[in-house]
Amino acid sequence: MRKEWEGFFPGVWEKTVNVRDFIQKNYTPYDGDDSFLEGPTEDTKALWDQVMDLFRQEREAGGVLDMDTKVISTIVSHGPGYLDKSKEKIVGFQTDKPLKRSLQPYGGIRMAKKACEDNGYKVDPELEEFFTLHRKTHNAGVFDAYTPEMRACRSSHVITGLPDAYGRGRIIGDYRRVALYGVDRLIEDKKAQKDSTRVIMYSDVIREREELSEQIRALEDLKKLGEIYGFDISRPAEDTREAIQWLYFGYLAAVKEQNGAAMSLGRTSTFIDIYAHRDLKNGKYTEREIQEFVDHFIMKLRMVKFARTPEYNELFSGDPQWVTESIGGVGIDGRHMVTKMSYRYLHTLSNLGTAPEPNLTVLWSTRLPENFKRFCAKTSIESSSIQYENDDLMRVTHGDDYAIACCVSSMRVGKEMQFFGARANLAKCLLYAINGGVDEISKKQVGPKYRPITSEYLDYDEVMDKYKDMMKWLAQVYVNALNIIHYMHDKYCYEKIQMALHDKKVTRWFATGIAGLSVVADSLSAIKYAKVKVIRDADGVACDYEVEGDFPKYGNDDDRVDDIATEIVNLFMSYVKSNHTYRGGIPTTSILTITSNVVYGKNTGSTPDGRKGGEPFAPGANPMHHRDSHGAVASLSSVAKLPFDSAQDGISNTFSIIPAALGKEDKVFVGELDVELPGYSEEPAAHEE
Amino acid sequence: MRKEWEGFFPGVWEKTVNVRDFIQKNYTPYDGDDSFLEGPTEDTKALWDQVMDLFRQEREAGGVLDMDTKVISTIVSHGPGYLDKSKEKIVGFQTDKPLKRSLQPYGGIRMAKKACEDNGYKVDPELEEFFTLHRKTHNAGVFDAYTPEMRACRSSHVITGLPDAYGRGRIIGDYRRVALYGVDRLIEDKKAQKDSTRVIMYSDVIREREELSEQIRALEDLKKLGEIYGFDISRPAEDTREAIQWLYFGYLAAVKEQNGAAMSLGRTSTFIDIYAHRDLKNGKYTEREIQEFVDHFIMKLRMVKFARTPEYNELFSGDPQWVTESIGGVGIDGRHMVTKMSYRYLHTLSNLGTAPEPNLTVLWSTRLPENFKRFCAKTSIESSSIQYENDDLMRVTHGDDYAIACCVSSMRVGKEMQFFGARANLAKCLLYAINGGVDEISKKQVGPKYRPITSEYLDYDEVMDKYKDMMKWLAQVYVNALNIIHYMHDKYCYEKIQMALHDKKVTRWFATGIAGLSVVADSLSAIKYAKVKVIRDADGVACDYEVEGDFPKYGNDDDRVDDIATEIVNLFMSYVKSNHTYRGGIPTTSILTITSNVVYGKNTGSTPDGRKGGEPFAPGANPMHHRDSHGAVASLSSVAKLPFDSAQDGISNTFSIIPAALGKEDKVFVGELDVELPGYSEEPAAHEE
Repeated sequence: MRKEWEGFFPGVWEKTVNVRDFIQKNYTPYDGDDSFLEGPTEDTKALWDQVMDLFRQEREAGGVLDMDTKVISTIVSHGPGYLDKSKEKIVGFQTDKPLKRSLQPYGGIRMAKKACEDNGYKVDPELEEFFTLHRKTHNAGVFDAYTPEMRACRSSHVITGLPDAYGRGRIIGDYRRVALYGVDRLIEDKKAQKDSTRVIMYSDVIREREELSEQIRALEDLKKLGEIYGFDISRPAEDTREAIQWLYFGYLAAVKEQNGAAMSLGRTSTFIDIYAHRDLKNGKYTEREIQEFVDHFIMKLRMVKFARTPEYNELFSGDPQWVTESIGGVGIDGRHMVTKMSYRYLHTLSNLGTAPEPNLTVLWSTRLPENFKRFCAKTSIESSSIQYENDDLMRVTHGDDYAIACCVSSMRVGKEMQFFGARANLAKCLLYAINGGVDEISKKQVGPKYRPITSEYLDYDEVMDKYKDMMKWLAQVYVNALNIIHYMHDKYCYEKIQMALHDKKVTRWFATGIAGLSVVADSLSAIKYAKVKVIRDADGVACDYEVEGDFPKYGNDDDRVDDIATEIVNLFMSYVKSNHTYRGGIPTTSILTITSNVVYGKNTGSTPDGRKGGEPFAPGANPMHHRDSHGAVASLSSVAKLPFDSAQDGISNTFSIIPAALGKEDKVFVGELDVELPGYSEEPAAHEE
Repeated sequence: MRKEWEGFFPGVWEKTVNVRDFIQKNYTPYDGDDSFLEGPTEDTKALWDQVMDLFRQEREAGGVLDMDTKVISTIVSHGPGYLDKSKEKIVGFQTDKPLKRSLQPYGGIRMAKKACEDNGYKVDPELEEFFTLHRKTHNAGVFDAYTPEMRACRSSHVITGLPDAYGRGRIIGDYRRVALYGVDRLIEDKKAQKDSTRVIMYSDVIREREELSEQIRALEDLKKLGEIYGFDISRPAEDTREAIQWLYFGYLAAVKEQNGAAMSLGRTSTFIDIYAHRDLKNGKYTEREIQEFVDHFIMKLRMVKFARTPEYNELFSGDPQWVTESIGGVGIDGRHMVTKMSYRYLHTLSNLGTAPEPNLTVLWSTRLPENFKRFCAKTSIESSSIQYENDDLMRVTHGDDYAIACCVSSMRVGKEMQFFGARANLAKCLLYAINGGVDEISKKQVGPKYRPITSEYLDYDEVMDKYKDMMKWLAQVYVNALNIIHYMHDKYCYEKIQMALHDKKVTRWFATGIAGLSVVADSLSAIKYAKVKVIRDADGVACDYEVEGDFPKYGNDDDRVDDIATEIVNLFMSYVKSNHTYRGGIPTTSILTITSNVVYGKNTGSTPDGRKGGEPFAPGANPMHHRDSHGAVASLSSVAKLPFDSAQDGISNTFSIIPAALGKEDKVFVGELDVELPGYSEEPAAHEE
């Protein structure tokens, strides 16, 4: 056994790259309470003050403190950067200066340029020319292949938020591998993978061989990144501090290379705890020192920033990175996976104060230890900054070494990745069904020229019949557009280092998304159970609706409408699945929108549920505001009925819990969480600001 | 009918892009003699003196007069360049200065850099870094995907000359389309093609849509190239001068964009003659003026130059561009296609003096008019600069609008292109069969570890058996390497403007090549009909052979050995065909080497035919020197037996005809040509210097 591994329980992880096996063989579940936790050190406080001051300067500067305009970001593009080298226990910035945003034009030079210009900077003209004439970008590739129909759907927002002008993200490198194995071993492994590709040079084999070569070069660069900061990460990490530092270098390389829509961290705390446990046992580090490493690590994650445009920030409400870290959960052997490190990670919300990033996500199970549940509840109430996901549900399909990318997308770390797919606006699609493909706002023929509905009152069967055809059409345009996007992203903006930290065989989830579900459910419910009269404009386009009578509304645990919602999700997913997907991607769907629901609503005319044109949708799978008249639990029950099989990529229900409303005592809160997490996950309020 | 087309006979060519139809409906066969031809004008003489002086300066400067080191060549990268604007009737250079070689790094930055450095120039370091870090090249892509086996085969030269570090070339844009239709119409056509791609976004559909977008942009740039020189080529050409100028702009755009191994012109003379015929009839231009346009056009083609390395020049013996123009031939309606323009093109060899470029190639048929045959013979004898190809043979498969790319590769203009594939060294492969895959020079295991031959004397059946296995292996490695090369060339160095001047549906020939055929035939003949003793070195590797007794030698019209040659070609081709080829490429093979036979021989050990290690091979399908003891016709008959069905990409037989040996009179020469062109083509001596 390698000397860095002394004291670890052996296993197949020694022979093959298998972090899960290492964790399962070595982690120590912790059932105790939070009394062991340590507060921030003087260095931590001084550094965090410095960071808070930088954040303040950044805000005062209008949102951006500094930007690269000439140096293109690569893993090794910059010299080392520090806050205060003498105080920092964990080091490394995306550029050579804290909060200086790097230049990443591979996704699209126009976007990179605009991000600079909107913040008062200017990309070097020679470089701009180069990326226009000689180095094609993801964005340029996509628009070369889009059909006029796709462009029309994009302009009308019936398909929206497509990652065609920004990095798709949603890929989590297994950064733990860097710590456990050191980079040399990973390179060796990748070389062996390259030696074992299929022997007939079909185009996909050629692509795979080229990608593996790119991955190997990225790993070589990763070693150099270590050297830039004075570390030899070719070998495994020796202790807690190195394990965190090595792991962070892996993540840092990823954010230096990619400006993805969500650059998540993975599931690292239980892994790191194994080192901490050994160091504490051997007296190498004290609890105080270990907490300091964690604090400094989290501090770095809080400072991850990208150059983005105001439009992007508007779509995502703020400037989120979704540096999601998944904590806790239960192993498939039945042992819970909460360790002292789970506490230490969450404790940073107290040591450094609350913050939306990293997106600390507890993989919730009714079988988590009571002490930890209580600690989560307490920290949630204090910080409003914990996301919860239902581990009992996801463990069934994903096992016990998955993590959350972005807010709800679950994937086995290092074994699965996601082709991110934004959202189809099913509410607008319903209006297209009624108007025969004519857009209710622009009056342009966007969808196919099917026969519109001409009756004064809407007939449920007729609407459903036409809606099915229209959804089928939309699913096809949508999946074809995504095929183009992911083909081009692989071609022009491949995630070298992230994929280098994956197995050779990777399962690709082909993510699609649904927006406007509760609007659709309520609209169809109104058509079925009340009377909906169509108001048409001079051109005969249905532009408004009058609802006569009451109807069951989504979010009240009423099967009459909840069944409609379920049927729509199942139908749309079956249409999605009937299409060819790029690179063997397995279709999934998510029902989430965070706050982009506002933007979607703005671009959708009046709907048959009585919602007026331009009004926001409910976020994600939420019921529409004020329509969940039967209380929180009934509302959540409606959401919980949605078919997770059809929407494996996640169903989001955003709600703000006012502690007082739930009872001040932690116990009550914990009880609520256990009840409330059967089939959905909660989105942290922090991301909605 | 458009006004530019007035006087032309109508046809489907008006409605669809169809140059062949235009030619067939409009050309005027010419049966007369050369008495109508005009000598050079004063302007022509003055310009050509200037060019000769530039060529002299270039030689004195060591081969290169000037090079771009910072401006990357694109269709519109340079301002206009002239020799003497007031005298030039046809204008346009690759850069802004005659003979200044452009910088083309898409194929490979190392090659571009080396080409500069070997000529005393230095590529701008920022640009070099950019092409190393951010803009991957064809060459870099190929080496990322190559297997160790492919690299070994390349190093040992058992596969050789692969276009993995230089442009593949061998694609002929239909430059005539620019003249006949003008660029706007071609753009319109390409847009319609883009609108009619298949609707499911499979990766090949996405690729096609992206390529069509690239083509449309290239055509837009082509218009700008016209503007740079003061011409509006968005519309069709109006007369002979414009037709030549428009056509030349198309070709110029191609050589500005691609530094391909052979940048051939096509089959333009009969097309241009239609304009000349109309202009003469209408009194717009005199014969003298028309000849001047042609002289100036050919002058420009003689000045096409690329930045290349000494190694490249060594492989191809000189600095050839293979600006091949195909002249004459017979139409499938039985009319010969010789026009006055066929004479005018060849007449440039007299007006400007002899030159290897453009590579004027007569598509020879016994049915060409006697006057033209006589003129060809006369010009051949005077200039040594005409290539002949057998039209009677090629017309069967390619129709009457094909042209020759490089020296022998025939393709329908604008409808077919070739994936160029260099050569497999079948002589070396035979040695691998004998040595169980061990290279006879490096002693490394390059081929598979099959059992070697251990007997003292070679047994024909044993050798053939092992040779078949080894050829099968070689064909697989070879085709797989070519798959990688063409995948990467499309990805990193796509021929935008050349493909823009093709139909949407293009037939792709997947060219392979054979080197050392006569060595193999003689070796197997020696083993079969004489006794061949193996000399082995201390390691047991067969390193030399002693032939006891006489044996039939290839090139003497002796079926015993000629049949062996045929069998080998058929066998190797069947092995090639049993492999998957990139992009539906249709496998062909060629048996030609021009003079690279010297390099191949240098890298091949002693062979069982008595040829000593390092001695040159015979070029192409030629018999080995001095072994064709039964005279020229017997030698040519041996070559003619080779199966054209298996080697549709061409069989080359290089020979120098000493006029005295054939008789001084043209008539005898013509007779010889008719006899001597049944199944092969002749290579101009000019390329062998």
